[in-house]
Order: sequence, then C-alpha cells, then structure tokens
Amino acid sequence: MTGPLSGMRIVECAAFVAVPLAGMTLAQMGADVIRVDRPTGGLDAKRWPVTASGESLFWAGMNKAKRSLAIDLTHPEGQEIVAALITAPGPDAGLFLTNLRGPAWMDWPALSARRADLVMVSLTGTRRGEPAVDYTVNPALGFPFATGPEGTTDPVAHMLPAWDLVAGQMVAGTLLAAERHRLKTGQGQMAELSLKDVGAAMMANLGLLAEVTVNGVDRPRYGNSLYGAYGQDFVCACGACVMVVGLTDRQWRGLVKVTGSEAAMAGLASATGLDLSREGDRWHARAGITAILTPWFAARTRMAVAALFDKAGLTWGPFRTFGQAVRDDPDLSPDNPMFAMVDQPGIGSYPMPGHPATFAGLGRLPPAPAPRLGQHSEAVLADVLGMASGQIGALIDRGIVAVA
Amino acid sequence: MTGPLSGMRIVECAAFVAVPLAGMTLAQMGADVIRVDRPTGGLDAKRWPVTASGESLFWAGMNKAKRSLAIDLTHPEGQEIVAALITAPGPDAGLFLTNLRGPAWMDWPALSARRADLVMVSLTGTRRGEPAVDYTVNPALGFPFATGPEGTTDPVAHMLPAWDLVAGQMVAGTLLAAERHRLKTGQGQMAELSLKDVGAAMMANLGLLAEVTVNGVDRPRYGNSLYGAYGQDFVCACGACVMVVGLTDRQWRGLVKVTGSEAAMAGLASATGLDLSREGDRWHARAGITAILTPWFAARTRMAVAALFDKAGLTWGPFRTFGQAVRDDPDLSPDNPMFAMVDQPGIGSYPMPGHPATFAGLGRLPPAPAPRLGQHSEAVLADVLGMASGQIGALIDRGIVAVA
Repeated sequence: MTGPLSGMRIVECAAFVAVPLAGMTLAQMGADVIRVDRPTGGLDAKRWPVTASGESLFWAGMNKAKRSLAIDLTHPEGQEIVAALITAPGPDAGLFLTNLRGPAWMDWPALSARRADLVMVSLTGTRRGEPAVDYTVNPALGFPFATGPEGTTDPVAHMLPAWDLVAGQMVAGTLLAAERHRLKTGQGQMAELSLKDVGAAMMANLGLLAEVTVNGVDRPRYGNSLYGAYGQDFVCACGACVMVVGLTDRQWRGLVKVTGSEAAMAGLASATGLDLSREGDRWHARAGITAILTPWFAARTRMAVAALFDKAGLTWGPFRTFGQAVRDDPDLSPDNPMFAMVDQPGIGSYPMPGHPATFAGLGRLPPAPAPRLGQHSEAVLADVLGMASGQIGALIDRGIVAVA
Repeated sequence: MTGPLSGMRIVECAAFVAVPLAGMTLAQMGADVIRVDRPTGGLDAKRWPVTASGESLFWAGMNKAKRSLAIDLTHPEGQEIVAALITAPGPDAGLFLTNLRGPAWMDWPALSARRADLVMVSLTGTRRGEPAVDYTVNPALGFPFATGPEGTTDPVAHMLPAWDLVAGQMVAGTLLAAERHRLKTGQGQMAELSLKDVGAAMMANLGLLAEVTVNGVDRPRYGNSLYGAYGQDFVCACGACVMVVGLTDRQWRGLVKVTGSEAAMAGLASATGLDLSREGDRWHARAGITAILTPWFAARTRMAVAALFDKAGLTWGPFRTFGQAVRDDPDLSPDNPMFAMVDQPGIGSYPMPGHPATFAGLGRLPPAPAPRLGQHSEAVLADVLGMASGQIGALIDRGIVAVA
C-alpha cells in the first residue's frame, strides 16, 4: 500500500511540536521522512507526558512513521553526513524541514551551494528569529483575555498547543507548494515562516484584528457562548454538560423544534423586538434563549438529550474529560479506521492514528510507530548515501553515529 | 510577482472556517481559487464579527485573494455550470474543495465521470458525515475540562476555533499531496477527512490518548502552567501579566540567572531532593519555583522585565487583550512585511495579512482583499468556460448568475 507522497524523501532536523508534526503529516501520507537527532536525543526526547519508566508518549506521538538517524551534530563528520543527506540527489529528494536556529553548515547558503534546487522550510519563533513558543505567542496575540467565564478577569491560556498544530500543518503545505513549484520549474526554494506570524495571520483571518481597527472593539470574554449567533453549554439532569449550536438557520430551527420552545421563542422575540431567524439577533437575545432552554436540559439526562438530538440531526456535543472521551467514544479507538493498535517499542500497544484523510484511490496507510532513536541509522547511511557497512561501522565505533 | 502555486486553479464550494481557510491559504500562495456561492451569499456571508453596517469582517478575512462566482445552485443550469467549472480541462485544474454535504450533482461519482483525474477534497463533521463543528468537537475530545484555573470545575471552551484552523491547513496539504500524486501518476483522487478525526488524531499525536490508555491518567486542569516542565504566568508591579517559559535547559538556566534566583533554586532542590535541571523535576517543584519567582516579578514593571528578558534572549511573552496587541505590537501591523493596508470594498482600509511564508526565490505575494460576492462571475464564465458575453448576459438576466 502506498500513500500519495510515496517516493518523496524529506530530512527533518527539529524538535517539539510544529515541525515534527509537519514531518509526521508528510510521513503519514507516504513520504520517507528521516528525523535527525543527537545520539542522546533531541530537546524533546523526554517531553511529557511520559510513562512510569520515563518513555515520552509525546515523542512517540509526534514521530510516527519516520526513520531515525542518530548522529553527532557537533562533529564535522556528522555535519558533513547530514548535509550530504539533505542535499542527496534525486528528483523526489532534496527536501529539508527545520526549526533549529541554524548553525552555518545547516543554513540555506551552505546547503543550496551543494544542491541548488533544494527546498528548505524553516520555522522560527518570531519573524526576527527571536525565541517564541505556543505558550508565549498565544498570550501576546490576545486570546487568553478573551477565554474563560464571562465576568472573570484572569487570563486563561489554552492547554492545546493550537498554534503549533496550525503552524505544523502550514509548514507541511508550504513544503508541498514549494516542491510543486520545483517540479514545474526546476527552481529550489528557501521558505521561511514564524510561529508568531502564523498566529497573527490567523487572528486577522478570523476578523479579530479588523474588529479592533475597524470596529474599535476589544472583544471581552463570553464564556462558552458561540459568538455572534447562538451556541451554549447546558447542564443535564445527570450532571453532564452538553454544547448546543444554533449557528445556521437549520441548526437553530432544529433546536427550537426538538426542545418544543417555539412559543417561548416567539414570546422572547416579540418582547425584545428581535428576529431570532437572524444570527446577530440570536446573539443579542442569548441570555433569554438560554433561560428558556435551561429547564429543558435540566429535566433530561444526557442520554435522553443525545437520543433526541441525534435523531433530529442537531449539531451538539458532550463535554467530557480526556479519560471519558477515550473510554466512551469509538471514534477514539480502532473502531475508527483511522486508528489501529500499534506496538510502540519501549511503551507497548495502544491505539495510534494515521493521517486523517482517506485517499480513495490509494486506501489508507496503516499507522506506523515512532522509531527508536537511531533505529534506521545504518539503513539511512547505506541506502541514501551508499555507505559500505565497514564505513558505517567505523562511524559507530567512533561515536559519531549511534544505533538503537 | 508569482507564488509557488501560480497557474493552479481550484474551485471551492464551502462555508465557515476550515475549507474556506484551505482555499485562501492556497490562493495566498498563488493559486486561482474560485469561491462559488449562492447569489444571496453562503451560510457564512453574515458571520460575526460584522461592521456597523453589517458587513462581515469574518467573511472578508477568510476569502482574501479568491475570485467570487455567485450562481443559483438550486437551478439545473447553475449546477451544470459549476460541475463544468470543477471538471474543466487543464493539467493544473480539476481541483475541488468542499465541506457541503453533497447534492448528487456535486459528489465524486458525478464529477469524476466528467473528469476521471479530478482531485476532490471533502471535509465532513464526523467520519460518518454527521454534523460537527469546532464548538462541539472540542468538548467531545476533552480539552475544556483540562483548561482553566486549577481547582475550578466548569468546562472552559476555547474561543479560538483551533480545530477549524488545523483542519483547514490539513485540507490544503491534502489537496497538494493528492495533486502531486496526480502529477506523478495521472491518477485522480477523492480525499475525505472529518473535523472530528483531525481533532482525534492531534489529541493522540500529543500523547493525550496514550496518557489515558497507557498511564491510566485523566489529566486535570493545571491553569496556565506549562505541563511537564516549567512555565508560568506572573503579575508585574504595573499589573500586567507575563508568561515565562523554562522548557529547555537553556531557557531554564537563563530564567534562573536573570532573576538572580540561583541560591533560592539550589535551596529548593536540596529541600525537595529534586534535580531542577530535569524538566520533570521542575514540574514537580513548580509551586516552589513560582513562590521564589513571584516577588521578583511583583517588584518590576513589565517594561523592566521585558528589557531584561529580551537582552538575555529568554522565552517569554506578555498577556494582553486583542486591542492592546493590535495597538502595541508592530508584528500586527504593516511594519511586518506579512501585512499591508488593503482596501476591502464595503468596509475600508485595514491591515491584512498574506501567507505567513516568504518564498525567497519568489518574493512575497502582497495581500489581496476578499472579492465582493459575484465580482468575478463574468470573468470566470468567460475565461474558464469560454462563454460569450451574450450567453453570460442571458444567465444574469434569468437570475441564474449574479454579479457584484
């Protein structure tokens, strides 16, 4: 079975979330992605969550389906080997992903001198190359003061590294766009982007920058309300919380119908002079709408709500902890063809996802585990650089290359 | 000036965030993206935030650099035109993005019968095609119960539609991967993915699923702490909040040095038996670390902290509102070459971002505004389908095609 990117070879020198996720996304579509680490592991080798024995579940999650080369990047011979790997010939090779602040041997001038049509994508913290991570970009953009219960004032940072995930996918797309351009023109490319610019662009794309400059509004926090239309969390009779969405007209009419609140909503509309078929008016009337709906949820268990809402095709979802989600939801298990039970060396067998897309003409590539550090050192040096086993053995003996 | 995707033509029938963002991302790298809407506008035409006169800042944000065709999709002639547009010949055309739950004329069997090598990417709510949006996917995955101040119990939903943004970038990458495969093999492709599967995959990629199944841990909320190492928010003397990160060894040593807390940290280490050079031990010691650092921040304004931290190259960031960020940060203004002042018809001039990546060999495509609805109806019918102006005029007269 092959993926759409089978045949493509990419070298990745990176750590943590964004760029490793970019490499993994490409690997899970079939590319041969060679992750390069120091013999003791990258900066993220021990990143939490970890198992009782200290194995990183994070690292295993972010490096699935890659090959691992462990090599001493401080040694000139190690540097020469990695540069040769990045710039190795072949129409589907010469592709490099990094988020390391470049030593000279790994920067564009040095590498493109070896292969002029190299495609290199580099992700920095800020556009000036300053350090920045999801934890610092998100507060600087303004999201934590617009998140959390209405009326509270402390900033609430997200625990999801959203900017890293967005940037990672954008790095993958940027590499594919630049490589397509190379296929069409033969031209190599140095593409640079920063985590903060990704966040700034997305904030502006969502209209949040214009809301300040055009409307003069500094949006406050609105709790769990869906801004600008209707959507709210409710507590059911069993204590479970659910999120209900009335963003589109169809969703809103369905919600009113299933909850039998037509008359009450008509009364609210006439009392307020608002037209609840308009999303903005639903937003203005949201407190009244919530007051009408609250007793309906309070009188029903989540199971009862789920049955009624699913039957009517409403857009809703339960709130639950990670543990509840994993235990209760077949979409987070091998019932979902995206997942399979995979044995991760050093950790054991657990459900791992492949790429979310199914390519109908190709089938689904089954999820593959992350490599052990150095697992493919010998294979990579032999099959990409054509090194003889004696040569590889000498590098291992001298501590320049490590194997699993 | 051209982008890496110049020459590529994509048709987009979609609404809201994810797929429109995918189309815009490709448009901002140079593709000709034709957004198709009903003559009255798509479901998202009035999406908030809106200006005082009701123009959607959201829509303007999500549809930059595209062309707009407004056409009656309920009319058989409108359907025929859109199907012809999607399947128009050309090696760089035959590319289709959608999140509409397909009418038969717009589904894969019908479209691929017209062009066998069509590349179509379809994003659904769940893998079974059920409705799901960011507001319902995020609670179902578990994030709101792991977000917010330690010790609180109410779920905190994110206000950033993170899953939409991630899925949008993934849709763009999926299209590029499938189109590359077509370039290499001639084979078309129907690629399907769901918003919920994107979320489920990312949750698992971050190690959060394995934390439940392997470690048996249901992670609680940890406020604004950086899980598994050290990172915390502090209040400065001026009342401003800052986020400080000690994730890597270099960041941690820098933080201790600049705050002059070497002796206090050594005391903490010896009192607790923890080794603060290890990230997991920093996590265990976080309350003590925070107690040591709190008075240091409380004694300094944010300006003073910024000067010291920037000089030392520490990884930190301010917390601020959207308004403060837009007013204070040159990275969110045309000082940043990603942004330019652009006139958006119906709204006015404000800073708009282009694609975050700079392609060194191509330069930066300047940001272009969103089209007015139907702005390119005539041009698209003429240049893609070769329709004569009389033919187009008749379609407009009959109300099948609308123009801006």
